[in-house]
Amino acid sequence: MDRTHFGQHSSSQFNEEMESIRSHLMEMGGLVEKQVIDALQALLHADSELAEKVITTEDRVDDLEKLIDSECARVLALRQPAASDLRMIIAVSKTVSDIERIGDESAKVARMAIQLAEEGESPRGYVEVRHIGNHVRTMLRDALDAFARFDADRAVQVAAEDNEVDLEYRSAMRSLVTFMMEDPRSISRVLNIIWSLRALERIGDHARNIAEQVIYLVKGKDVRHISVDEMEKQVRGKS
Amino acid sequence: MDRTHFGQHSSSQFNEEMESIRSHLMEMGGLVEKQVIDALQALLHADSELAEKVITTEDRVDDLEKLIDSECARVLALRQPAASDLRMIIAVSKTVSDIERIGDESAKVARMAIQLAEEGESPRGYVEVRHIGNHVRTMLRDALDAFARFDADRAVQVAAEDNEVDLEYRSAMRSLVTFMMEDPRSISRVLNIIWSLRALERIGDHARNIAEQVIYLVKGKDVRHISVDEMEKQVRGKS
Repeated sequence: MDRTHFGQHSSSQFNEEMESIRSHLMEMGGLVEKQVIDALQALLHADSELAEKVITTEDRVDDLEKLIDSECARVLALRQPAASDLRMIIAVSKTVSDIERIGDESAKVARMAIQLAEEGESPRGYVEVRHIGNHVRTMLRDALDAFARFDADRAVQVAAEDNEVDLEYRSAMRSLVTFMMEDPRSISRVLNIIWSLRALERIGDHARNIAEQVIYLVKGKDVRHISVDEMEKQVRGKS
Repeated sequence: MDRTHFGQHSSSQFNEEMESIRSHLMEMGGLVEKQVIDALQALLHADSELAEKVITTEDRVDDLEKLIDSECARVLALRQPAASDLRMIIAVSKTVSDIERIGDESAKVARMAIQLAEEGESPRGYVEVRHIGNHVRTMLRDALDAFARFDADRAVQVAAEDNEVDLEYRSAMRSLVTFMMEDPRSISRVLNIIWSLRALERIGDHARNIAEQVIYLVKGKDVRHISVDEMEKQVRGKS
């Protein structure tokens, strides 16, 4: 570990370290946002080359996860952050895991895009992919923006969107399963779409998790595992 | 926040707090281990009542996640842990998320068990569920044991098992998809098995994540996103 700062603790160094963590998190968030967009594009246009790009981006995302976690550990060890700085470190540490998993799920969508490019298009499901894909992509962008701007209200909105995505996902699944029963020869291709929708739905879940960390960061309240209504009350209430 | 200990920091109080975190983590781990076992049992024996029990256990798991995270935040704020104590807090904080998600995945298996009890048994897939289910259940137990005993070697073994589970999972999926094509009337029931296998495979991934945190805890090394061979080298090497 780099010890050059040790014993020369100053507030400006500390601020620089916190800023570095924050900016690496935003860089990582931007990368996976791009992964989600590209994976969707690759799936909708049977673009294997773009899909490969999504998959290779994973390495950089993974490296950033490790870098950010090591930066957080270093600040905890040497700077003993308190109050909102400590909440920032804790929220970042939880959030990097969710961002990394969004990268994973995008790579799954990309792999399905490659499969579909090889096997031939699915006869159904693209409308749903486009719709749910755009929805979770917006959720992710909003969750990251909310983190950057300490915007708890926007974070609550992201959580509310996740409930809608779940409904859309379930409805899409029902219609795709019905279609497979009517046209069994399409099963393998439709399943690629089903796996992609599943991955997109998970991306929505992770975006919601990020939003929950924003609320922890801003309000100091743990709003996991509660309803959106309850979350809203906690955010509006005195902190 | 309870401030009664503030300013009376003593080593024995600190040890008690660390012990409380550790024992809550083990309690949470034990709960989800039971959830996995019960969800499998419920699925294999079409036992809706047991499945409901798995689902209702989620609330306690969620509460423990929040409790443990708040204990960790408190120790970080008031005790400024260093070295191995700090690594313990960081590893616990990552691990609770994985344990909670294992609980989620078990609940998904339980919901599939209820579906299958209603729709009638799937004509295929139970052998695979039993086999992969037992595999990931052992991985989870070993990962939690490795955490309790600071056993990095066992943690490496868990990671190696995860690769095997992935192969078993892919093979099971191929045969179930083939079966669905031959017998389209079974699609809906077989899909319940497919979702369950997917959840079990995810449980294996989370067990591996826990194992990686054990290695971080014991060796101070971040072994995420590397091969099992590389992991083994890092664990055997000087720390």
